Amino acid sequence: MKTYKFPKIPEATIKRLSIYNRILRELKRDGIEVVSSSKLSEISGLNAAQIRKDLTYFGEFGVRGVGYFVNHLLENIKGILGINKQWNLILIGLGKLGQALLSYENLRKQGYNIVAAFDTDPEKIGKTFGINEVPVYGLDKINDIVKKFNVKIAIITTPAVVAQEVLKRLEEAGVAGVINFAPTKLTPDPKTKIKISYVDLVTEFDKMAFKITSD
Amino acid sequence: MKTYKFPKIPEATIKRLSIYNRILRELKRDGIEVVSSSKLSEISGLNAAQIRKDLTYFGEFGVRGVGYFVNHLLENIKGILGINKQWNLILIGLGKLGQALLSYENLRKQGYNIVAAFDTDPEKIGKTFGINEVPVYGLDKINDIVKKFNVKIAIITTPAVVAQEVLKRLEEAGVAGVINFAPTKLTPDPKTKIKISYVDLVTEFDKMAFKITSD
Repeated sequence: MKTYKFPKIPEATIKRLSIYNRILRELKRDGIEVVSSSKLSEISGLNAAQIRKDLTYFGEFGVRGVGYFVNHLLENIKGILGINKQWNLILIGLGKLGQALLSYENLRKQGYNIVAAFDTDPEKIGKTFGINEVPVYGLDKINDIVKKFNVKIAIITTPAVVAQEVLKRLEEAGVAGVINFAPTKLTPDPKTKIKISYVDLVTEFDKMAFKITSD
Repeated sequence: MKTYKFPKIPEATIKRLSIYNRILRELKRDGIEVVSSSKLSEISGLNAAQIRKDLTYFGEFGVRGVGYFVNHLLENIKGILGINKQWNLILIGLGKLGQALLSYENLRKQGYNIVAAFDTDPEKIGKTFGINEVPVYGLDKINDIVKKFNVKIAIITTPAVVAQEVLKRLEEAGVAGVINFAPTKLTPDPKTKIKISYVDLVTEFDKMAFKITSD
């Protein structure tokens, strides 16, 4: 698989590529081999012309009058998104949401392996959680595990009040990116280049409330 | 508060309004009263010209050379998004993710009240869950609760294999929208106008993998 380097791709395009990726995975699962841009538009709610533009941006994956080959397009988008490989992840904060993510099979299926979880609760440390029996450590082991498993991505599912402190430990361990579920803004050390993304589930509810109100 | 009716607002704009809404909530929480489009751009990663365009689309909330009044803009965006009111929700499927959502305080703070949860497990039915002690019922009570509390939005956190059957019950009860966390596509009855949105957490991981790979 080729390595793609597109540092200039806008955030909105990446978002759409992730959407195409998800839809194509579902089509593949359903045994569908070819899909048109109008069908992709119908499923995604995105404009068909926008979809064609996005997909030609990275080369010609389409066949005029036929559509896109699902598997071929999926593999190319995965290559572009850098997700055509395995990632080792850690998770910090074993509350209900943390435990739910440990059991979220879709993550593992898509190449995201949570290799260890961290918590401060002595009742949890030393045990394993989730269907994949992920081991739980104290926060002092973050550095060791990150080095041992070459962990690039960490998931924060702690209470908001400790998330910043956890971020500091992750920066010290050399993690490249953090997906933050804690409902608080995190301030990275300006000397590190750590990337932080925020998952705010309320946004999904706002979108639904709007759809219903405007109908 | 005025009622806004903008059925033609594109999905991408709604998504951005939700992002502004989240950022403005955080700014308000931090005591910040005025914000410029360039600051909003810095926080959101969105283009400043795009932000100004989005916000003027709905009227003039800005003061030239000063910025936007955070509270005023927030209230207007909430009005546009239809989220300046309380919503009663139900949740179906009390696994770990369902339980995590029952304890997700940000939902309640933003006006989304989960009034009841539903499960098939006799060990859970009749009990209450989460910090707000949400009662749990069998699926046969969906219709009654939806009517009693005027529920418009339902959250599906069941296993994929039963999600379609649950959707059918929700349609029969007259729910207007479903937020689906189950990793499966749902097919609504064409006679209903029920709206379905999908929350796929893998998308967030794909975006982070891409950011790290392209850096």
